[in-house]
Amino acid sequence: MTSFQMSAKEDMVEKFLDAAARGDLTQVSSLLSLVPSLINQTGYSGWTALMLAARNGHLHVAEKLVSLGCDKSSVNSSSQTALDIAKFWGHRHIAGLLSQSEGSCRRILPGGDLSLQENYFGRETLDRLSGRRTDEVWLETKQKDLATVYLLFSNLSPMVSTPQEDSEGGDIKLCRFRYEAVKDLLQKPSTVLIFLGMEKMKSSSSSSSQTEEPPVWFAISTDEDAAELLRRCRENTCLFPKTPNRDLLKLSEEEAGVVAQARSVLAWHSRYSFCSTCGSSTHLEEAGYKRSCLNPECRSQRGVHNTCYPRVDPVVIMLVIHPDGNQCLLGRKKVFPAGMFSCLAGFVEPGEAIEEAVRREVEEESGVKVGPVQYVSCQPWPMPSNLMIGCLAVAVTTDIKVDEKEIEEARWFPRQQVIDSLFRGASPAFFVPPRQTIAHQLIKHWVGMNSNL
Amino acid sequence: MTSFQMSAKEDMVEKFLDAAARGDLTQVSSLLSLVPSLINQTGYSGWTALMLAARNGHLHVAEKLVSLGCDKSSVNSSSQTALDIAKFWGHRHIAGLLSQSEGSCRRILPGGDLSLQENYFGRETLDRLSGRRTDEVWLETKQKDLATVYLLFSNLSPMVSTPQEDSEGGDIKLCRFRYEAVKDLLQKPSTVLIFLGMEKMKSSSSSSSQTEEPPVWFAISTDEDAAELLRRCRENTCLFPKTPNRDLLKLSEEEAGVVAQARSVLAWHSRYSFCSTCGSSTHLEEAGYKRSCLNPECRSQRGVHNTCYPRVDPVVIMLVIHPDGNQCLLGRKKVFPAGMFSCLAGFVEPGEAIEEAVRREVEEESGVKVGPVQYVSCQPWPMPSNLMIGCLAVAVTTDIKVDEKEIEEARWFPRQQVIDSLFRGASPAFFVPPRQTIAHQLIKHWVGMNSNL
Ligand SMILES: [Zn+2]
Ligand SMILES: [Zn+2]
Repeated sequence: MTSFQMSAKEDMVEKFLDAAARGDLTQVSSLLSLVPSLINQTGYSGWTALMLAARNGHLHVAEKLVSLGCDKSSVNSSSQTALDIAKFWGHRHIAGLLSQSEGSCRRILPGGDLSLQENYFGRETLDRLSGRRTDEVWLETKQKDLATVYLLFSNLSPMVSTPQEDSEGGDIKLCRFRYEAVKDLLQKPSTVLIFLGMEKMKSSSSSSSQTEEPPVWFAISTDEDAAELLRRCRENTCLFPKTPNRDLLKLSEEEAGVVAQARSVLAWHSRYSFCSTCGSSTHLEEAGYKRSCLNPECRSQRGVHNTCYPRVDPVVIMLVIHPDGNQCLLGRKKVFPAGMFSCLAGFVEPGEAIEEAVRREVEEESGVKVGPVQYVSCQPWPMPSNLMIGCLAVAVTTDIKVDEKEIEEARWFPRQQVIDSLFRGASPAFFVPPRQTIAHQLIKHWVGMNSNL
Repeated sequence: MTSFQMSAKEDMVEKFLDAAARGDLTQVSSLLSLVPSLINQTGYSGWTALMLAARNGHLHVAEKLVSLGCDKSSVNSSSQTALDIAKFWGHRHIAGLLSQSEGSCRRILPGGDLSLQENYFGRETLDRLSGRRTDEVWLETKQKDLATVYLLFSNLSPMVSTPQEDSEGGDIKLCRFRYEAVKDLLQKPSTVLIFLGMEKMKSSSSSSSQTEEPPVWFAISTDEDAAELLRRCRENTCLFPKTPNRDLLKLSEEEAGVVAQARSVLAWHSRYSFCSTCGSSTHLEEAGYKRSCLNPECRSQRGVHNTCYPRVDPVVIMLVIHPDGNQCLLGRKKVFPAGMFSCLAGFVEPGEAIEEAVRREVEEESGVKVGPVQYVSCQPWPMPSNLMIGCLAVAVTTDIKVDEKEIEEARWFPRQQVIDSLFRGASPAFFVPPRQTIAHQLIKHWVGMNSNL
């Protein structure tokens, strides 16, 4: 091969990768029909055409490459596959294309698989086994099982251990107790016991016996003195976090999901001890998922009423995009740290659809009118029991007039400024909430969409 | 023109329309480059290529036709535009393409505009003006305003007039009262008064003065005898419907939206008269959107607590699609009319994401495991205050094992059987819930997707 040929081939690879990065399907196709072996060539940092298409959200190019049998599993110099890249940049359709088996999902759900996005607090590591909540014999056996895991809550905070000070994220762990350590607490009338579920079978755990059930988990809430409870831990690095909406973001994804469930249910018990229909006392039933009125004459005893079941409050949280497509609307409350801006949000009202709640809240808080609304993903937020429903929304007006009772300031931020804040480090003058929040994920989803970076 | 030419042209139109109907983008493009005037030609019943592409969900063909400037506004012999057809068959992406101005929305939200789908009970004809709920002077003035509209509720049912017996859908109307007719009721201590909002400005109403505010609406709930209340109506065709979850489906879309709001808030007042934190009585505030505890020592007085605000219960409702893409899973409860099958559904639990709730409920009720989940649309359902979150879900297993406490039977139904039931009239052996339900709309959305009919 002459040096001229070498250079011609390099030129062609570069042209091919550039076409994939720009989403130029015509050029990608014609180059591949000339030189099929281009398909798995790599450029700078080991990026393939598929990775570049995945990075920039060019679905049709990605489909073409996949249909021609490109290697989906190769990794770049940062060990990312094209799927990792598509997920990171929020290109759901491409992530769906790359993660599906034989394209069947895409054929069935042409709109794409929205369930790929998992937010903090959203992971379910336990099977809730709601059918067992009324099975008192089974529950009692499980309570005494040596493998059973108990979490301790005081004042709605779980006991955690903090192995290292000053480290970031994923650095606190739930303290797990066995039956022996908590059996005296279980006897106290003021103790609230919640059945959380059974650990999900890992498909790879073929080593353990098939007949042996995985451990189940319970949460215990007690009014016993926190210092007294902490003595149950041998280590002295344990504590009950004082500021849950900051401290609970330091758990692992798995433990955060368990805490979301336990804290929401416990918060309900702490505020709903009395029957709202007649004012009588209530008692706990169904392993912690029902409270029934003790007054036999109460209307809540006839039929099924939501007064007896835990409350979940749907909240819309939305990133509003400027009609020019290149700016987004962020606001700040007085209580936010200086420099922090976030998505607008508000409770869904009775008799209101999600999309209408988005339009109403945005107009109330910022004066901006919204047209189309698109659901992106959701997040359970156990402060105390919200379901955050995350949407993108397109503005049809741009003048801002904030409702000062709700927010202190709202502004249009250019995409580049948001990208800088997300990826080049937050500046004290402007930053967004941390990655554990759906606000952060919505913002990242938007800056990754159709981006030409 | 010779008859040979005529026939050649007819052949070409037919070939062109057929290519559009099949989604053959290559053939559509090459025929148009040969004979650009084909673009607005019509075939059987006045259908254009755009209508056929819209009917069958061929987004790329529709985009091509639109980009070449086809006539989007022409109608077929049933007076449907391509947009009407796309909406009817649930092709959201095409409906988004056809309804947007200058393609800007599609550029900003590549995933499509999900907010086009509006379900029964979801229309907001009133601006809720939540900022006015604490403005007692304004509210009192509006109460006495001659233009103000009052709705009367008894036992959570609105007073309606029924002009014709035995007619179907949209055939009951809310009775609207003026201040004079209700001012005595407003004095009674047991009366609950809810501010609903102000009629939204119609942009076309340039005839009326710009300074005059549109009328506001209130809902009144009273424990006065229903017969006594009915005497307020001159006509004798008025009544309080006895079976709300059937009768309220006969309202117009506009009135259904108002009733959804009013009934949900009133249902909350009827069941939440006592403070759930301490059992004391509560009193109504903020024009019906808050109840505060009368016990000054109560914990609910310190900070903001959901105990004081109306409850909205998120519910997932999902159409589960067979891995083969051509069957869907429907189930029936014992209380359903014989022959009726519907989507599975269940309440979102505390600490649970929407997609996880879909997977849990489907597996609990039917034994079927679900993979990808896609949000489609939602519906407020005021029985008493649910937010129905409608999703499509793709099954990854197919064996059915029903939880008999929840449902009586669940089955895979072939797409064609579902289509027959929707469009060729229900058979007593198999039918789905009426069009006012999100279950119906989800089913219609699915049969319209990727359909080759
Ligand atoms: Zn009671
Ligand atoms: Zn109280």
